[in-house]
Parts: sequence; structure tokens; C-alpha cells
Amino acid sequence: MAPLRVALLQGPPGVPGAVAESLAALERAARTAVGRGARLLVTSELFLTGYAVGGRMAELAEPAGGASEQRVAEIAARHRIGIVYGAPERDGDAVLNTARFVGADGRLLAAYRKTHLFGEYEREIFRPGAEPVVQAGFDGVRIGLLICYDVEFPETVRAHALTGTELLVVPTALMRPYDFVAHTLVPARAYENGLHLAYVNRCGPEGRYDFAGLSCLAGPDGAVRARAGGGAELLVGDVDPAVLRAARAETPYLSDRRPELYGALTRRTTP
Amino acid sequence: MAPLRVALLQGPPGVPGAVAESLAALERAARTAVGRGARLLVTSELFLTGYAVGGRMAELAEPAGGASEQRVAEIAARHRIGIVYGAPERDGDAVLNTARFVGADGRLLAAYRKTHLFGEYEREIFRPGAEPVVQAGFDGVRIGLLICYDVEFPETVRAHALTGTELLVVPTALMRPYDFVAHTLVPARAYENGLHLAYVNRCGPEGRYDFAGLSCLAGPDGAVRARAGGGAELLVGDVDPAVLRAARAETPYLSDRRPELYGALTRRTTP
Repeated sequence: MAPLRVALLQGPPGVPGAVAESLAALERAARTAVGRGARLLVTSELFLTGYAVGGRMAELAEPAGGASEQRVAEIAARHRIGIVYGAPERDGDAVLNTARFVGADGRLLAAYRKTHLFGEYEREIFRPGAEPVVQAGFDGVRIGLLICYDVEFPETVRAHALTGTELLVVPTALMRPYDFVAHTLVPARAYENGLHLAYVNRCGPEGRYDFAGLSCLAGPDGAVRARAGGGAELLVGDVDPAVLRAARAETPYLSDRRPELYGALTRRTTP
Repeated sequence: MAPLRVALLQGPPGVPGAVAESLAALERAARTAVGRGARLLVTSELFLTGYAVGGRMAELAEPAGGASEQRVAEIAARHRIGIVYGAPERDGDAVLNTARFVGADGRLLAAYRKTHLFGEYEREIFRPGAEPVVQAGFDGVRIGLLICYDVEFPETVRAHALTGTELLVVPTALMRPYDFVAHTLVPARAYENGLHLAYVNRCGPEGRYDFAGLSCLAGPDGAVRARAGGGAELLVGDVDPAVLRAARAETPYLSDRRPELYGALTRRTTP
């Protein structure tokens, strides 16, 4: 099986709330990514709308199958590339922070709603998702979805590994000063679970936030295969099933676990 | 509350099986550690006997309260310093890989038996422990014990954090080429759980192993407060409860968890 080349679109440096501009940037990125051999393109969290749009998030949110989703599907099908993108989702009166996975034929493969909301800002705007593991098969690779803060909890990534995720795709909006997450936590997650992890961040100032960039493709062997700096960037890296198999043989964490000892993790406790 | 200064004894470069030499090295380290202001001294895994003693492990193992334990208690009481040390333990026909925690008065505070055995070598020699969280209060700090491979499983450290561990003490025998564990996984564990972590390794060649050194005191804020190189070394670092409180406020992972979503972690599954 040939490696799956993944393109990570760090950015955009665009205007918050300017969905049309985001879609145009997505199409440019899709063209470039295909030219560099990528079969999957991943954006940051809330890519379509921006993160710091505050009270406008509810009006910018679209229900499943909305106009923007159809535009992304057209882009995916036109360029023959899978796309994972972040956007707010309307569900009745609620707004969710969602990542959608569209196949290279434009068909929706999966949608994941962020389960771990970060801080007061997100908790005021969004309803948290209720489904911890969302996956889809793509070009022979089992791909799972998480969003930003989710990945900082080891439980979430472990649940993915235990249910077969081989490439975990994580649109994110990591702010300074939390660079430690991108530098250390993300490679640790990939290594301790024997999976590839594509972590795709926003960059630069937006409202009162300053996003850290540092997007990366981390491998199950502890190696970081691609790493962005602090600015807008499209970077590519390969997800190789052979690397995954070798890593899981070398560090057999999943089979050496002792789940009968982990009961404390599922109890509601106040530390 | 004044910070708790901890001394990490990386080594020994001694002769495997030479328990008397190990005890002499421990006493020298206790004297030096006290001179540098430490109130707790931590050794590597299987410090008293060496790691690569193979079939001799069973004869070197002593039951609880054995002669070596009494000698360590005398050293602790003579120098007025707490000691966590690794040694094989006999329990009937079984041998366990144990870390004992002796108070500054020589009294045994806790004993932890390694729950996650690494590789065929350890599984042939040892019976795994059955108790995931073992703790003791010491100088106002709640101290927990794990051993080596245990800490590579995020579940074990999470269980400690959820039951109040503030300083996790981890005697280890990390071999090359697993340096990633010391460099990345250990600081990740401290950060994601909001605790201090003292990781104390062996160093240099022993039998067919080549131990990596790189002992460290990792903080809940992601900072590594002390880091050894590849050779024998006694290093000290401070465990500050104020740093822990600030980190848990800044990254409130423990209160932002959603344990109702983590059921997959306690089921026996084959990935």
C-alpha cells in the first residue's frame, strides 16, 4: 500500500467571518496540494468562519448539508482530493464546533462535533458533542477526527487507537502561550497510541487571540514528519501503514495495557 | 509551604548483583543529597540488585522487611531523608518488581509493585502488581509511585492525578533507543495531569542493555526543572505546590474531562 500523502493548510490569515474568502483559499490550497501529490487536505478549526467571531458564530453556522458544505464538496470533487475542514454547525437552536470529512468524490464521509470545549468563550457559544470516536475509511487508511482541546486529553486519542484509528486528523486553534501542546503533547499522543496524527492550526493574531501555528504530522515512531512555523503555510507529509505496523510491534502499548486497572478513569470524580 | 527539594540518583554504574555496593552508594548519595538541601532521594528501578541479573533475580529478592530494607531504613533515619528505591521483592514463590518508600525516620511509608511489565525478560521473572495507585503523604506533598514502563501508559498517571498525587516518583530502567520516552512522554505526563514527575533512570551498559540516563524532574507547567545526561549523576530539583496550583488553574484538564465518554478505556479489547 502506497503512503497516503496529507496536506496541512495552516491558516488562514484571512478575515474572520469572510466565508467566501475562506472557500476561495480552500480551493487554491486543494489545487496546490494535489500538485504536490496529496490525496487528503486538512484545515484548521473553524476554518470557514474564523475563530474569534464571537456573537456572529450563530448566524454563520449552517445546518448539515448547507451551502458551504456543498461548495466544499464541489471543490473536493473538482480536484479529486479528500478534505477535512472545520466550521460551526447549526442543529436546531444549538451551535456545534464541527469537523467535516468530504471524500474525493464530494460525498460526506463523516462529521465530528468537538466534545471537549475550551474555556468560557467556547462554552458560551457551543454545545459539546456527545460522540467521542468518529471515523471513516479513506484510501485504505482508517481516519479519525478530533478537534483542538480534545487531543490534549489522552483518553480521547486512546479511544481512537482502541477502535482502529490509524491517522487521527485534528483541526485546531491553539493559542500562545500553549506551544507545549504542539511541540510535546501531540507527538506524545502519536507515539503512545501507535498512530499518525495530523494537527492543523491557525496562525497569527485574531481578535484577542494569537494562534501559535506549529502544525505538524507526528508519526507513531515519535518522528515528526512535517512541522510548520508560525505563519501561513501548506505543508505535506506521508502516512505510511508500514511505519505504523513497525511502531506497534516495537512499542506494543495497546496490547500491554491492563484495562482492569483503569476504572478510576471512567468515574466522575472531583480531584 | 516551602518547596520540597528532591534528589534524583541516576545510576549506579555499579556491579549487577552487588547489593552491598549499592547500599554503600545509596548512603553516599543520601549524605550528598542532604548537603544540597534535599528531603527526598529517589533511585532507579531495581537499584539494589541491578536490572540485568537474569536468573539471579529470584535469589536476590528479599521479602518485605528483609535485611536490605532494614539497611535502607537505617540510612534514611541516619541522614534524615526520605528514600524511594527499587528492588526485587519475594512474595512466596513469586518475585515482584517493587519500589519502596521509606520516611526520614526510617519507617516504611508505601510499597508499589510494577503493574506493567516490559517485554519477555521481565514477564519471565516477575509477577505483575495488582494495585494501580499507591501513595503516601510526605512533608505536606502527596507522593505516588510508579515504575518505568508503567508511566508510558497515560492511564496510570491519570489515575494518580485523579486520586490526588502531586509528585509522581518513577524509578526506571529506560534503555536506548527509547530516549523519546524521557525527552517527550515524561514531560507530557506531568503537563497533561498537572503534577510533578521525578523520573530516575539507570545509565550505561549492563548485560545486553544500554540504559539511556536522561533522568528528569518534569513540572506541571511543562518545564523540565532538572535533566541528567547519559552518565552517573545526582541531580536535585524543587517541587513547589504553588507551581502545581497555578498549572492546574491554567490548564484545567482534570475538571474539563468527560469521563462518561471514556468507557472504551476500561474494556478488554483487542485492537
